[in-house]
Amino acid sequence: MTMRTTARGAATRQRLVSGAALLMREQGAAETNLDQVLRATSTSKSQLFHYFPDGRAGLLVAVTRYEAEQVIEAQRPHLDDLSTAESWREWRGGVLRHYVELGERCPMGSLTSELGTSSSEARNIVNGLYDRWEGALMAGVQAMIVNGAVRPDLPVRDTARSILTAVQGGVVMLRATGRLSYLETTLDTTLEPLLGTPRAAA
Amino acid sequence: MTMRTTARGAATRQRLVSGAALLMREQGAAETNLDQVLRATSTSKSQLFHYFPDGRAGLLVAVTRYEAEQVIEAQRPHLDDLSTAESWREWRGGVLRHYVELGERCPMGSLTSELGTSSSEARNIVNGLYDRWEGALMAGVQAMIVNGAVRPDLPVRDTARSILTAVQGGVVMLRATGRLSYLETTLDTTLEPLLGTPRAAA
Repeated sequence: MTMRTTARGAATRQRLVSGAALLMREQGAAETNLDQVLRATSTSKSQLFHYFPDGRAGLLVAVTRYEAEQVIEAQRPHLDDLSTAESWREWRGGVLRHYVELGERCPMGSLTSELGTSSSEARNIVNGLYDRWEGALMAGVQAMIVNGAVRPDLPVRDTARSILTAVQGGVVMLRATGRLSYLETTLDTTLEPLLGTPRAAA
Repeated sequence: MTMRTTARGAATRQRLVSGAALLMREQGAAETNLDQVLRATSTSKSQLFHYFPDGRAGLLVAVTRYEAEQVIEAQRPHLDDLSTAESWREWRGGVLRHYVELGERCPMGSLTSELGTSSSEARNIVNGLYDRWEGALMAGVQAMIVNGAVRPDLPVRDTARSILTAVQGGVVMLRATGRLSYLETTLDTTLEPLLGTPRAAA
């Protein structure tokens, strides 16, 4: 009985968070109020305050954590096994498709600016996301070294960090300009130690 | 006489724009209203509407153009003559210092989001800035090739574009996390074709 209630409770909380995330993706975090979230998720005010006693602030943090998870999720399954050139190429293609699809929407940016970019909660979530993302890329670079697919003295952390930073830069520029070439080119350049030169010199 | 009036007019307009830019840098574009700008620049409302007939909207566009110019200006003199490894190193150091100094402030970001990121005016200014910046970096890569300092088949546009994207990514991550390492590492990586490996493998 307790178990059942807990499971149902978790489902309600999850419905609130993912429903709020969807609304905030479409219209921005700043433009989304609690009434809209309640309506969209068929939840009562008392249920919401049961799971988020401080209301909107707590929900925002939960949605930001959820969206950070989605950033990683969008790169799966490739991100979890970057041990071959083929999986790196598929990961690259998935990243390009994902950010083209998002277009000008920037769920994490909208949420962290609503939380206050420099708030400790926003910063913890973003730092945690970057660390996890970099860690997954590092595991991939390491696996390529172990497999003998790349030179053994390739700096693992710096290679992973450059690829991660390339994605952030390319995505920011895609959103600002609508041009995909920044993300494509910089991924090619930073992946070159793993995949070689993608094409003849420009 | 006409000449003198014009010169004085240009000075007033310039004082309005740079004064508004300073205020918006410190407190954000969205948080800055015309009364604050008038007070800070000792300008009358009628003077402001003389130079910016549509008021705040026109002033915002002018400030955004001004800040785009400052982005380039902050990289001078090195950006104008990237013909040696030394000047590239000095440019890199200047970029790091500039963005550390700016800290969490993001003048262009604050302005373009106030103009509406996808407004044609914001987009034109940002696209123009990126094109000019990339062009300056391309001229530098080309000069390094002509000087025989790097391999002649180095792809000029892709190298420049990757360096530019690395800066954007590193700066965005610096602002979000307070960590400089993303910008440092990705600059090292994308500058490697020009400067060689900066240090032993990690």
